[in-house]
Amino acid sequence: MFELDLRLRKDSFEVCRFPLSRVLMMNDATYPWFVLVPQREGITEIHGLTDGDQLQLIRESCYLSKKLATIFCADKMNVAALGNVVSQLHIHHIVRYNSDPAWPGPVWGVLPAMPYDEDEKERLLDSLRTVIGRDIEVTA
Amino acid sequence: MFELDLRLRKDSFEVCRFPLSRVLMMNDATYPWFVLVPQREGITEIHGLTDGDQLQLIRESCYLSKKLATIFCADKMNVAALGNVVSQLHIHHIVRYNSDPAWPGPVWGVLPAMPYDEDEKERLLDSLRTVIGRDIEVTA
Repeated sequence: MFELDLRLRKDSFEVCRFPLSRVLMMNDATYPWFVLVPQREGITEIHGLTDGDQLQLIRESCYLSKKLATIFCADKMNVAALGNVVSQLHIHHIVRYNSDPAWPGPVWGVLPAMPYDEDEKERLLDSLRTVIGRDIEVTA
Repeated sequence: MFELDLRLRKDSFEVCRFPLSRVLMMNDATYPWFVLVPQREGITEIHGLTDGDQLQLIRESCYLSKKLATIFCADKMNVAALGNVVSQLHIHHIVRYNSDPAWPGPVWGVLPAMPYDEDEKERLLDSLRTVIGRDIEVTA
């Protein structure tokens, strides 16, 4: 039975669900920062997924990454599975700009998270759900 | 015509070639640090690869990651496509230990690279080529 890690739940909002993964938006307005979490119990590494789930993950990851790059006019997407602190497999998808405060370094540990205000968060989630959550390309 | 980025070439050694990607070992003895570079010209994002190449990439990435985790007895694998500095698509595969100097943070920017000594490098590459380079699982 899959359950989302408590720290991920605390630090993010659910955008939508793909066939394999939940799409979360981190509560950090500094960067458009999203996380894919494959809904599989006890998995900590991408290579720990079944072959079929690995293929579905790359489809979902590329679909999300391409959508985010377009929506947010990204200079670069950063896609990463680290998991040194939260072991439940989760793949960061971070929109980067050459003007953002961590550029060109990675974002982790540079600035404390800046929570969204409630209205901004709701507007953004509504808009993202319309664009990301209603496409059939990633359906298994 | 694919050509490896000059900075990647300067900072790494080629281990072997998979059907899609070159496998490089970074010249930094602090961590067992490898990079997959899909041999496709002008690609900067995973989602910029064709659908077929995306599937081949995840196969090669999972194959490499699993082998490295076993060979080096990793506590965790860090797999990341950043590319904020070197834009040619390359995917880091870094073996992490909870005793390494950057743990639990990411490795980038923590310590200057510590070059391998020549003998150690040759021994490691020979050994890796035997274990990683002779498997048919990742053949397209």
